[in-house]
This record gives sequence, C-alpha cells and structure tokens, in this order.
Amino acid sequence: MTEHPTTQHDAFLADWAVHSRFGAVEGTGGVERQAASAADGEQRAWFAQLLESHGFTVRRDEIGNQFGLLELVPGAPYVLTGSHMDSQPTAGRFDGAYGVMASAHACFRVADELRASGETPRCNLAVVNWFNEEGSRFKPSMMGSSVFTGKLPLADALTTPDPHGVTVAEALDAIGERGDAAVFGGDGPRVASYAEIHVQQGRSMEEDGVTIGLVNATWGARKFEFKVTGEQAHSGSTLMADRRDALLGAARLIVAARELVDEFEPGALHTACGEINVYPNSPVVVASEVQLLFDLRSPSSEVLSAAYDRVMETVERVQREDRVQIEIVAEHSWDQNPYPEAGLELAREVAQELGLTHDRVMTVAGHDSTNMKDQAPTVMLFVPSVDGVSHNLNEFTRDEDLLAGVDHLTGVVRRLAGGALVAE
Amino acid sequence: MTEHPTTQHDAFLADWAVHSRFGAVEGTGGVERQAASAADGEQRAWFAQLLESHGFTVRRDEIGNQFGLLELVPGAPYVLTGSHMDSQPTAGRFDGAYGVMASAHACFRVADELRASGETPRCNLAVVNWFNEEGSRFKPSMMGSSVFTGKLPLADALTTPDPHGVTVAEALDAIGERGDAAVFGGDGPRVASYAEIHVQQGRSMEEDGVTIGLVNATWGARKFEFKVTGEQAHSGSTLMADRRDALLGAARLIVAARELVDEFEPGALHTACGEINVYPNSPVVVASEVQLLFDLRSPSSEVLSAAYDRVMETVERVQREDRVQIEIVAEHSWDQNPYPEAGLELAREVAQELGLTHDRVMTVAGHDSTNMKDQAPTVMLFVPSVDGVSHNLNEFTRDEDLLAGVDHLTGVVRRLAGGALVAE
Repeated sequence: MTEHPTTQHDAFLADWAVHSRFGAVEGTGGVERQAASAADGEQRAWFAQLLESHGFTVRRDEIGNQFGLLELVPGAPYVLTGSHMDSQPTAGRFDGAYGVMASAHACFRVADELRASGETPRCNLAVVNWFNEEGSRFKPSMMGSSVFTGKLPLADALTTPDPHGVTVAEALDAIGERGDAAVFGGDGPRVASYAEIHVQQGRSMEEDGVTIGLVNATWGARKFEFKVTGEQAHSGSTLMADRRDALLGAARLIVAARELVDEFEPGALHTACGEINVYPNSPVVVASEVQLLFDLRSPSSEVLSAAYDRVMETVERVQREDRVQIEIVAEHSWDQNPYPEAGLELAREVAQELGLTHDRVMTVAGHDSTNMKDQAPTVMLFVPSVDGVSHNLNEFTRDEDLLAGVDHLTGVVRRLAGGALVAE
Repeated sequence: MTEHPTTQHDAFLADWAVHSRFGAVEGTGGVERQAASAADGEQRAWFAQLLESHGFTVRRDEIGNQFGLLELVPGAPYVLTGSHMDSQPTAGRFDGAYGVMASAHACFRVADELRASGETPRCNLAVVNWFNEEGSRFKPSMMGSSVFTGKLPLADALTTPDPHGVTVAEALDAIGERGDAAVFGGDGPRVASYAEIHVQQGRSMEEDGVTIGLVNATWGARKFEFKVTGEQAHSGSTLMADRRDALLGAARLIVAARELVDEFEPGALHTACGEINVYPNSPVVVASEVQLLFDLRSPSSEVLSAAYDRVMETVERVQREDRVQIEIVAEHSWDQNPYPEAGLELAREVAQELGLTHDRVMTVAGHDSTNMKDQAPTVMLFVPSVDGVSHNLNEFTRDEDLLAGVDHLTGVVRRLAGGALVAE
C-alpha cells in the first residue's frame, strides 16, 4: 500500500465536508441540488472561490459549464478533469460531486508538485463542473458536455424548459452562471486529454474487493419516449368495453418491462420506466394521453435487439387489446461503447504503482466522459459504492475509498500533464 | 305529445348557446372550466346577470355556491333546483351546466306562470350553481353541496390546495365568488325540496329510447387512495433484484383493476385508476413513492365486497413480489344509495302528463343531489347522452332532449312550488 499523504487527505476531506452542505437534505446524508437551482448556484460560487484560492482562473461557457484553469505553460493544451455537481431530486452527495472535488484536489496536488519541483509539464491543468448531467430538471441528461462536444446545439439546450416552463437560459441567468463565450476551442485553449472519476452505482466492486475500477465500456441502451393515446371518458359511468384507457396501456408497458427481464439470463438486461406524465390525471376521468419513458440496457447487442423485438410485440398487443394507440415519439440508442485501451492501461499502471486493487468494470450509466472520449484521450475511473445504492439519499462511499480515488486520479493527472496519451 | 312552448324553448336555446362559450375549447364543442378558474368566474358573472334580469336576487355562500332567489311568498321555504357549472379538463359542455341552465329556465317559466295567474305558491324558487362538483382541481368532488349539507367542514374545504398550492379560499377570492355567510339555514331561508337534471353519462337511455330518466339509485362505490412506497435507485445501474420500484407496484394495481372486471358478469363492476402522482418522476430514477386513486363501482354490494377482497389479495401479492409497501391512505365507500320513492313518483307523473317516454335508471356517478337527498325531498332526472360520451370534449345531447328535459323539470318545479313532497 502507498503511504497516505496525510495533509492532502485532510485537505480533501475538509473541503468535501463543506461541499456536502450545499443543498443538504436535513436529517440525511444526501442532497437535492438539481441543475441551476439556488443550491447549485451557491455551490458553484463556493467552488469558484476554492479554485481561485489555489491560483486557478474561473470561467464559465455559454451552457454554464464551470471551468477552473491553471496555465503553467503559455499556449499549451490542457488536461481537463471533472464531473458534475448537479444532483437528482433527494439524491446522494457522492454522485458527480465526488468527481469534481477529486479532480480539483488532484490538480491542486499536481500543481503543488510542479511548483515545488520547478518542472515544466507538457500540459496545463483544468477542472470542470459540467452543467446538468442528471437531466432531472432539464432534458436531456449530460447537457453541458453534449453542448461542449458539439453533440447538442447550444440554442436547443438554452431554450429547453423545466416542468414549470423556466428555460435553461433563464435558470442559468438566475444564478449568474451563464457565460457569453466558449472557454475551450476556437482561438482559445485546447483539451489534450480528459479524466473523470465517479462512484460505481453498482455493487460489483465492493463485492469483489476492488478499490479502483478501470471503466472499459458503457452498456448499450435503447431508450424510448412512448405516447399512449386513449380517449377521455367518465371513469365511473363509461362501460368498461367502451373505454380506451391510456393509463392502463402505459401500466401494461411498465409491467411488461419488468417481466421482460426474466426472459434473459440474470444481469443480462436492465429495464426501467422512471417517468410518466398523465393527462388529464383527474380522479374521475379515464386518461386520454400518457407520456412514458422506457429504457432497455444491456452489455449485449444481441440481448438489446431481442428485447427490442419483444417490446414491439407488447406494444402491438396492448394497442389491440386495450384499444389505445402507442407511438414512439423519441428514441435514443447506443451500442456497447468502449473506452480507449490507452487510458485503461495508463490507469492500470497508476493503480499498480500505488498498490491499489483494481479491475476492469463496465458502467451501466452514461457519464460526461461518454461524450468526452469521442473528442480526446480519456480515462474513466470508479471507486466502490456501499451496496451500490445510487440516486438515493443513502448513497455512501467510505472515506478510505474516496481518498484512494483522489490518490489515483492525482497519479493519472500527473501523467497526463506530462504528456501521456497525447499524440506526438 | 305535449305542444312545444316555442318562445320558451327558443329562449332556453339562446341562453344555452351563450353559456357554452365560457371556457370553450376552440375547434371543439367542449369546454375547460375547472372550479374557480377565470372561465368559471366569467360564467358566474354572466349567469348572475341572467338571473337578475328575471327578477332573481343573486347571493353566494362561504364556499362559493351561487344562488338565485325569487321570493314570491315572504318567509316561505324554497324549492331549490340546480347543478354545477364547473367542468373537468377538456370536457363536455353539458355535464352539470345543462342542469343549472335547465333549472334557471324552469324557474323562469314557473315564475312567469305564477305572475300571470296571480296564484300564490306554497314555496319560493331558488336556482343553485354548486361549487366544484367535479373535484378535478380541488378534492373532494361535490365540495359545494358537501359543505352546504354539513358533510364537509367549511374550513377544510377553504384550505384545500390545488396542484399549484392555490387554496379554494384564494381561488374563490380571485374570481370574487366567496361569500361571507350562509345563504340558507340558520335564521335564513329554508330548503323545502330539491330537483336536479343531468345528462346520463351512459348510453342505456339512448339505446332504450327513453327521454326522461327517473334516477332511482346511485351505484355503490369503494374508492381508495393508495400510497405505494419503494426506494429511490438509479434506474439504469441498480440490479433488477435490488429494486423496490413504486411505479411498477402501482402499474400492477392498475392492470389488476382492469383484469378484475372480467371475473364478474358483464356490467356488474366498473373499475378505474384516473390519477397517479409519482416521485421523483425523473428519467433515470426508480420511483420511491406513488399515489394512486383506485375506484370500484357496482350496483351490487356483494360484487363490491368480493371485488374488494380480490383487490386486497392483489395488494398482498404485489407487496410480496415487488418488495414495495402499499398503504390505503384514504378510503371512501358507499353502498347502493336509493333516491326517495315520492320523488320518483312525482317525476313519473310529470313525464306521463307531458307524454315523454320515461324509465327508472341508476346513476353510476355521484351528483350534488346525492348530498341533497339526505336533507330534503329530492327529484333526480336524466336526459339521454349520445353514445354515453362523458368527461370528453365530444359529449353531446340533442336539442330535442335538452328541451324535453327543461319541459319536464318545469313540471317538477311547478308541483314542488305548489307544495308537492313537502311534509304537512
């Protein structure tokens, strides 16, 4: 095992404790800090001060991604490292936020080392707090990194409303976090490489005794937004045979999603319906329209494809038997999506050097690195999460794992700053 | 057949046409005029003018029931007749509103007759527009008549919030429709008898060629508000076996409600789930809490009781299999509820006199008369509805049926004003 750099560990835990107060849900260890909420704004202000106190220059881009830049070599490209500080409603304090704080401290440590040694790195250092990774308030998720990587037009993102009709632009303006220009790209700085660390959101690492997860791929997914259309009717007096109940149709799909899992090997398919919106949603009215989000996830393209076919069979059956119409109004799919081998090898070397247990793991969830890895050499890391509890106030990762993750990420950033993964 | 009183029919249809403009949904024949909405307020103002132009005094009570009073005999009790002008979201123009307009015109006609004949009736005349019968914006339904009959405390009603947190008191104040005292009762006027007419919300009268329905009972009902509790989790990464999905639990109940119907004789049981509220209702979060309204309705107590037992078996099974907790947080039940025979006989005589086809029918839905019949001799009438379409923009009743209903209700009000049904 590596010796603990006690002072730096204490510094991380002290900042982490302050950080977890923003949007804290009283009586729990969790937070509610949805994108561009007041709590998000307060935390960003505090985080900006923290970065500045370590000599970083804080800037934000047009979609509210918050950057801390430390230029060590004028004109050199940047190692970018970070994650997101926004949370789901009533969620854990680790998801995303740990990655941002670990990135900041990794950069602080590498910067201090470089200052002490007088060594000139190949790259500058930058920390990022991506805007709206969660997508709970504004859809889609991973909004900030999607705009940054050109996968989502800025104008589309800025005009996206939350459920109360407040747009992203308005919400960012309300917390003073909308910038007026890109920070990277164009004539500005360039990104040389990207690193991100996150809690696992699963329990395999904890069960296998693995401290550092080397993330080698994202599960494939097929995500649908269904619109189920029936007909408004009096829910008491209308004859059952006359009804066309959109909520019933949606309920059949929700149940079918769960039952579909049992047709495959255990663990081969995850399905979920997390969001439903019903019209008119009135006590004595048969629903005429339901919007339902429906996800399939699997590491296997074959499983996804077979599951997709079964879902379409269910859609046909429900349309016929319950006399409703079911349309796919939006669809978003990706196949199993690998992370680059060079990043995995670099992360493995660092773990070995530090004597940290490590293994390759897949991620079921998407991360901002899913966007970034298509643009720059990328390293994606996990630390364990107790019982894999995620998107829940009780999410928990032990201090020793948090600190091991910071040590490991510091090693990764150190090598990236020295030019690792950067094409000659 | 009776001869048509053409002038009075034209007068009704003219007022009916104006009336249907308030809250009209463009491009449809329907309306959106939820309780204490701006459209409800505008219609009430117009209706007050109409009543006043016929010599009625308009008053409103503390829960916003709107009354038009015509005192013909100082100190005598009142025949009260009416229904409600609020609607469900995107609903038909006939439900409730027809009853209020028919009542007003029945009273206008009886008042004109009495003025012309110089005869002194036994009772005075009053029209009522009950507040919030629908219950779509503020729960429970039949709020105005429930407060009027002492079944719901005024303070509870006034503090009831809509989904945006606006209370009944605030909403009534916003449209200037909250009175400061009771209109009937105490030292004020008394109600001698009550009459209400409504469109059927079923298709049996249309199929059987019946113009006037003599409503003899309300179906029994068991209504539940279920709370399904699961646990928030990441809806992608959490192992399926680890999930406790409250939305899945609710979907099982919705499907079970529909399937339960097929265990009984056709038409013996109606079930419905019209409203569902999900937390956190986020794209990538397994729901932790769902509130679901779940209704059973039947003319038979035995069927209701058997259905209730089956629902409880389903609740047990879903709790066990899906690892969720299901509580009944509110429950509201009533047995088959008869209307008084004296009122049925009076209505039958009037129909016979006018040569209108008539038959006894049950109502599946509750009406304000369900409250009033426990307080005063009551007559409840139906006219046919094309295809029984209800709580739908396409709800429709033919003019000839509307006019036959006004003629019939006029006959009923005439007899009630003369003292029919009133205890000596």
